[in-house]
Amino acid sequence: MPGPVLIYSRFPKALMKRISEKFDLIDAAGKPPVTVFSKDELANVRALITAGGQSLRADVMDTLPNLGAIVCYGTGYDGVDLEAAKARNIVVANSPAANASAVADLAMMLMLTATRKIIPADQYVRSGGWAAATPSPLMTAPAGLPGAKIGVYGMGAIGRKIASRAAAFEMDVGYFNRTNYADLPYTYFPTLEGLVDWCDILMVAVRAGADTQHIINADMLKRLGPNGTVVNISRGSTIDEKALVAALRDKTIAAAALDVFETEPHKPDALTEFPNVVVTPHIGGHTLESHAGMQGCVIQNLTAFYAGKGVAHPVT
Amino acid sequence: MPGPVLIYSRFPKALMKRISEKFDLIDAAGKPPVTVFSKDELANVRALITAGGQSLRADVMDTLPNLGAIVCYGTGYDGVDLEAAKARNIVVANSPAANASAVADLAMMLMLTATRKIIPADQYVRSGGWAAATPSPLMTAPAGLPGAKIGVYGMGAIGRKIASRAAAFEMDVGYFNRTNYADLPYTYFPTLEGLVDWCDILMVAVRAGADTQHIINADMLKRLGPNGTVVNISRGSTIDEKALVAALRDKTIAAAALDVFETEPHKPDALTEFPNVVVTPHIGGHTLESHAGMQGCVIQNLTAFYAGKGVAHPVT
Repeated sequence: MPGPVLIYSRFPKALMKRISEKFDLIDAAGKPPVTVFSKDELANVRALITAGGQSLRADVMDTLPNLGAIVCYGTGYDGVDLEAAKARNIVVANSPAANASAVADLAMMLMLTATRKIIPADQYVRSGGWAAATPSPLMTAPAGLPGAKIGVYGMGAIGRKIASRAAAFEMDVGYFNRTNYADLPYTYFPTLEGLVDWCDILMVAVRAGADTQHIINADMLKRLGPNGTVVNISRGSTIDEKALVAALRDKTIAAAALDVFETEPHKPDALTEFPNVVVTPHIGGHTLESHAGMQGCVIQNLTAFYAGKGVAHPVT
Repeated sequence: MPGPVLIYSRFPKALMKRISEKFDLIDAAGKPPVTVFSKDELANVRALITAGGQSLRADVMDTLPNLGAIVCYGTGYDGVDLEAAKARNIVVANSPAANASAVADLAMMLMLTATRKIIPADQYVRSGGWAAATPSPLMTAPAGLPGAKIGVYGMGAIGRKIASRAAAFEMDVGYFNRTNYADLPYTYFPTLEGLVDWCDILMVAVRAGADTQHIINADMLKRLGPNGTVVNISRGSTIDEKALVAALRDKTIAAAALDVFETEPHKPDALTEFPNVVVTPHIGGHTLESHAGMQGCVIQNLTAFYAGKGVAHPVT
């Protein structure tokens, strides 16, 4: 076995089991590696596995003098300082598209749950409200999906799968993306503002980074409007959560459905008090097949790296 | 205005508003018409509007000596005694397909909610379980939809829309139906047993009637198996609820998601105690567009009837 491979983020053991059959893993469990391992142990580490959203900056890299590969479990790599890695000849790899279907499925579920109000509906039945014919404002007929305008922000692997699902729901699909893909049968908007002005449902599927930090701000939420719903399955950093709470409080928008948050795990707060908000604990890519796909990518990346062939899925 | 048109079932006033602009409505609000109106008033009634699932038998028809048309709001007409109507020269009409997209959307949402466990996930975030890293068996990775086998029982307008949505979710789609439609790209099963043995998710979209009463019984649930989920957006009568409760208690099946129940409104009971059950208060067709479509069909049916042209959408 080559190795040892450092597990930098906190992962459930079950997710690392398959990888541990091929590589010798040493687990920092989310703590700074220098606080867990000796200098000698850290000097042996040539590769690490991390969750792409977790901060991994120059200071940590400098505690691993022989680090050559940062392998992200998942699609994202927004927590990794790519410049610092490049300066140290550390290659960064990810698991592209392995979780795209699972995330797109959750995105559709969040949209449906928010617009058709399934959580209050379930509670209405369980609590006896239906049996007692208790008046419920939540039971007012909502707009359905067919003909509704969905704006997909970010047309990567996940955005494409959201768009194809939305088309099957008879929705009118538009998107904003750096590239206008001629092969896609959806309406391209050259600006995010144009997309948000147009759509009823804004689906945030963009890759997170410094350029998308708080890009969904008070102005964008105002553009989305009082019948608008925002769904985020990207990263919490893309939405200004304070502005979102204000927009929900003032009914500037109708609803929000979020799988990701500015700080994770997200603590109960003003956001989780709204009945027209749906929140899930970052489970977009959390299916058996998605994990198997991501584990496969990690193994491919590490195998290539230790064979001296770079990584299988480099972040460019 | 022709009329008066009797409103036989209990409907929210808002749903009858558009119809009331064209027809003179008298509202029994779900009570036996003889207890609400005089014999003379009832003798004037030539048409009535009902919810298709509500019992409407010979005894009620006989209190309306000049009744010529029973117009169902929605697709279903399972509560109407068709033989008794025919014997009295009463034509029965419905609103075919007007709610199909809305019902199919809810079916997909119920499937996603049950398999991806969104209600416990939302509760986990809201309650602070996520922030406290409370262990949660519900957070174990579930199987995703891509590659999963969905068995659509009943390939009418709703079944077709469920199937096309499921295909966009990259599911393997099979169906059982009296007719094997050569134009459909899905796997046809010649028996319901064969479909249920095969599928992971059973989607009940069949028209309710005497022949489908409790057709999803203990044997079918055993065939569905411990990884199986049953979703019902048809009528509660199609599932033996006692057998369903036993199957959930004994883990004979994994989960259930129900918009319809044997008795509606459904009272809290053993069924609503399970965490792996999702329940909604018969809101499948409950969207603005779906109601507009159903109201349009009712108006078409009544307009044709009073013009002496039969009904626009006869039940045959």
